[in-house]
Amino acid sequence: VKTVAIVGVGLIGGSFALALRKAGFEGKIVGVSSPATIAKALERGVIDEAMSLAQAAAIADLVYLSQPIQGILETLDVLDTDALITDAGSTKAVICERAKRLKRGRFVGGHPMAGKETRGVEEADADLFRGRPYILTAREPDLEKWVELIGGRLVILEPQDHDALAAIVSHVPQLISTALAAEIGATGGAAKLVGPAAVDLTRLALSPYEVWRDIFATNAGPIRVALKLFTGILEGLGAQLSEPTMQKEFLQAAQTARELRQPVNEKD
Amino acid sequence: VKTVAIVGVGLIGGSFALALRKAGFEGKIVGVSSPATIAKALERGVIDEAMSLAQAAAIADLVYLSQPIQGILETLDVLDTDALITDAGSTKAVICERAKRLKRGRFVGGHPMAGKETRGVEEADADLFRGRPYILTAREPDLEKWVELIGGRLVILEPQDHDALAAIVSHVPQLISTALAAEIGATGGAAKLVGPAAVDLTRLALSPYEVWRDIFATNAGPIRVALKLFTGILEGLGAQLSEPTMQKEFLQAAQTARELRQPVNEKD
Repeated sequence: VKTVAIVGVGLIGGSFALALRKAGFEGKIVGVSSPATIAKALERGVIDEAMSLAQAAAIADLVYLSQPIQGILETLDVLDTDALITDAGSTKAVICERAKRLKRGRFVGGHPMAGKETRGVEEADADLFRGRPYILTAREPDLEKWVELIGGRLVILEPQDHDALAAIVSHVPQLISTALAAEIGATGGAAKLVGPAAVDLTRLALSPYEVWRDIFATNAGPIRVALKLFTGILEGLGAQLSEPTMQKEFLQAAQTARELRQPVNEKD
Repeated sequence: VKTVAIVGVGLIGGSFALALRKAGFEGKIVGVSSPATIAKALERGVIDEAMSLAQAAAIADLVYLSQPIQGILETLDVLDTDALITDAGSTKAVICERAKRLKRGRFVGGHPMAGKETRGVEEADADLFRGRPYILTAREPDLEKWVELIGGRLVILEPQDHDALAAIVSHVPQLISTALAAEIGATGGAAKLVGPAAVDLTRLALSPYEVWRDIFATNAGPIRVALKLFTGILEGLGAQLSEPTMQKEFLQAAQTARELRQPVNEKD
């Protein structure tokens, strides 16, 4: 890989560019984005040069699509390149299906499980992917190498399997956070009592809707399945509040929560 | 207030003692706790002296009950003092009801909305209450003064009102976190995909069961009401995933989440 084209130089695309540099990538990084974003990306040294999509597609060895999902789908409709193509969209089935229409180039879906409630190339961070899962929808040695060099924890998953699991670990948490904020907002006097617990759990509710609109629209089925499982578990806990069986549920969940926090080398 | 007795010198009781000192309290602080805790509390300089409950009750002007709820109830059953008595239990209706049986002394229920997933006097922190809500179940000038001096945001609430609101901002968040950890634990492959969202939302699931057993047992009714409201909102979001109405719900919740984060002086 000598030339990388980042299409959508926001938090994720910008962080991927910075992470590549930090990991020793010595080729050229071109950016395809709005003029305002390009100006900020050039100023921060995130990209070397700005280009149109067609120009970038003609010279890139790797095209990295890091727009919101709807933007990725629209780019795939017009993209024409011999390059290796990957994306950073938060759902994979719809995107991978759309990529099958590409006339040429090789497409491998990707999803770095990293992010912040903030957006924009101003927030880009070379270490954003470090220690975080990075899913690819197929094996691809060149891409796997860079995922590992930027510190991602490589996971290979079929698009549908990714979407079912992402619904549980990412999309349902977002809805939980939004619903809790809504409940607090709807209850007079509740906001005055908010302590660290509710502050923590409503952090995701700050996330930008533009990102989530596309995730909800392209993963509604799996999200509903995961939500139903979640509310079932929650109602089960509610039914045994004063029961001795609660202890087992509580300790088992605590054990899972601890395991999620173990360093990668102990866990893998 | 010249002598304060801390009954249960753990995270909250120890922090209250340290916070009093930092706020300029120059009287004596005595501790009533297990020998192991007393040894650690004396070593850290959290208390000046250890006593039995009866000894402490005889000399204290303020008795601060900071055991788990069941311990507070048991202490109230045997406590005999002329002092002002308050507690730090996470539910208030059952405790305030039990305190009505006290033969003498004045009781005012309290609840600092502060804490950590960890326990013990080792974790005690003079700034634990700073900027956090501190509920009292009745007006009491002496107590109000100290709550404000240690940085708490004083809120006066009837016990039942406290319990209904605490169910929403604290007890339901705990159950949400436990349920999400349980869902992730029950789904093969999910743990490998966990990113910052699920790590954040499962932090509360690490909380000690001994603390929560008593909260669940003494606030089951209000918790079930708050849970039902929460699952209703969550299912409502699930039903409109691809609908344009979702945007309004999302932005409104984001606005609430932002308001919860505003500095106290802007918010009050």
